[in-house]
Amino acid sequence: MPMLFENVCVLGSGLLGSSLLMAAKNRGLCRRAQVWSRSEATRAQARAQPWCDQVFDTPESAVQAADLVVLGAPVQVIPALLEKIAAHIKPSAIVTDVGSVKQDICAAGQRVLPKNFIGSHPMAGSEKTGIAAADQTLFEAQACFVVPLPESDPLAVEKLTAFWSALGTRVTQTDAQTHDRIVARVSHLPHALAAALCVTLSQDHPEWKNFSGNGLKDATRIAASDPELWKQIFSQNRAALLQALDQHIETINTLRQALDQADEKTIKALLTRAQTYRQNWPIE
Amino acid sequence: MPMLFENVCVLGSGLLGSSLLMAAKNRGLCRRAQVWSRSEATRAQARAQPWCDQVFDTPESAVQAADLVVLGAPVQVIPALLEKIAAHIKPSAIVTDVGSVKQDICAAGQRVLPKNFIGSHPMAGSEKTGIAAADQTLFEAQACFVVPLPESDPLAVEKLTAFWSALGTRVTQTDAQTHDRIVARVSHLPHALAAALCVTLSQDHPEWKNFSGNGLKDATRIAASDPELWKQIFSQNRAALLQALDQHIETINTLRQALDQADEKTIKALLTRAQTYRQNWPIE
Repeated sequence: MPMLFENVCVLGSGLLGSSLLMAAKNRGLCRRAQVWSRSEATRAQARAQPWCDQVFDTPESAVQAADLVVLGAPVQVIPALLEKIAAHIKPSAIVTDVGSVKQDICAAGQRVLPKNFIGSHPMAGSEKTGIAAADQTLFEAQACFVVPLPESDPLAVEKLTAFWSALGTRVTQTDAQTHDRIVARVSHLPHALAAALCVTLSQDHPEWKNFSGNGLKDATRIAASDPELWKQIFSQNRAALLQALDQHIETINTLRQALDQADEKTIKALLTRAQTYRQNWPIE
Repeated sequence: MPMLFENVCVLGSGLLGSSLLMAAKNRGLCRRAQVWSRSEATRAQARAQPWCDQVFDTPESAVQAADLVVLGAPVQVIPALLEKIAAHIKPSAIVTDVGSVKQDICAAGQRVLPKNFIGSHPMAGSEKTGIAAADQTLFEAQACFVVPLPESDPLAVEKLTAFWSALGTRVTQTDAQTHDRIVARVSHLPHALAAALCVTLSQDHPEWKNFSGNGLKDATRIAASDPELWKQIFSQNRAALLQALDQHIETINTLRQALDQADEKTIKALLTRAQTYRQNWPIE
């Protein structure tokens, strides 16, 4: 793979940030992998990683020599972090993030770094967190959104797109509002529903969980994710998620009514529609 | 493993029935594996299986020499099948089933074969169907309910329990009503919700599915299951499923209200409760 950036710096080295650096370094996409993290414990962990070249104590110092800065912090933290680094980046640096919601973050980027900031959102992750779970294959075959600003340099957008492609993702360019509407449906709604199912089942006799099968295990896996991260994501994408949830409540009510009326024809039609949707899955 | 039955006969050789026979034969739990299936195509498939010793053209002839009869047909078909075979089984035969709902089936068993019928429900399966998907490890480490009738011979219950244990399941004895309440929660509700989620998402632009990640893929896997089988399961367990669905609608409304009011404290409390439930999973 061609080297795309001399220095790639991740601010907030959680699962996504550290997986990204590990993959970029091991694929030769950068010469130096640089890390800043808010917690000293994470910085110490980062120093011990073979893929990590430099660890910084402040975000301002971390970004100074970076050609690509990737904000891996929780979504509600990113706007303040952008303000903090704005005066310290190289003029030619590309600054991006991996946050799950784009409107607030892109608005902040446009305010403080209109020439440098381009939003990203790789649809990768897991219920695990932190450097210890870093996985350089995390992005392979996953979708990735690149969200340019009106001020973005087309060459920079192209370079960032090449970077995500080189990590194995399937890149789509879109605007922040469209992005947020899409992920409200294909990511935030499913997450909310998996959590809600666990909340409902947590009201059962604790032993009943022992009777569950693989179906329930798979259906609820994402509910084990970090509550603080997801609370922030839900809050930042509140309007679109509410809309998705309201449409889903309609589906649930349709199903409930069909059951209540023993309307087997409607029940089967709903199950068939679901099966058709699920059987035609883009990537297995 | 000790041989528990000379002849084991499965009526309705779908995924569960054929996996059961394959496992029983290969573990030496029976001498002869016998099959009847409604469809001639399935009977032909069964004849080609190395684990299958005899294939019959009618259920009446299939059960005549069987020491254990396992009804693997869809749940709404089982009561009529029980009536059909009642006059043809050996007096000492144990008759059981693998249906996902127990009250209707056990009532039918009590009506026509009170001395022979004992209900079973292994919490195994997948979105796949048919002999071609048969898997002799399907039952390993899964929960299995054994549901005796008041008339059941304790020695027969013990023998059936030993059989399921020898297939690798964790057996629990319970009554039909308790069984149906439990599975309404840990199996039928999750199934209904996965299907409902797919129905909601099927209303999106078809391309949006390409942006989904592994979380959605796992959360909806069971929605690919056979609509006819699950329509029958939902119908037979209608009352308990409706109750579960109503309780779940309350959870969804609580979450919706918290989102609507930007009540981050409640959102986080719900997500934390879900995480706690999911992190303490009985078997990984």
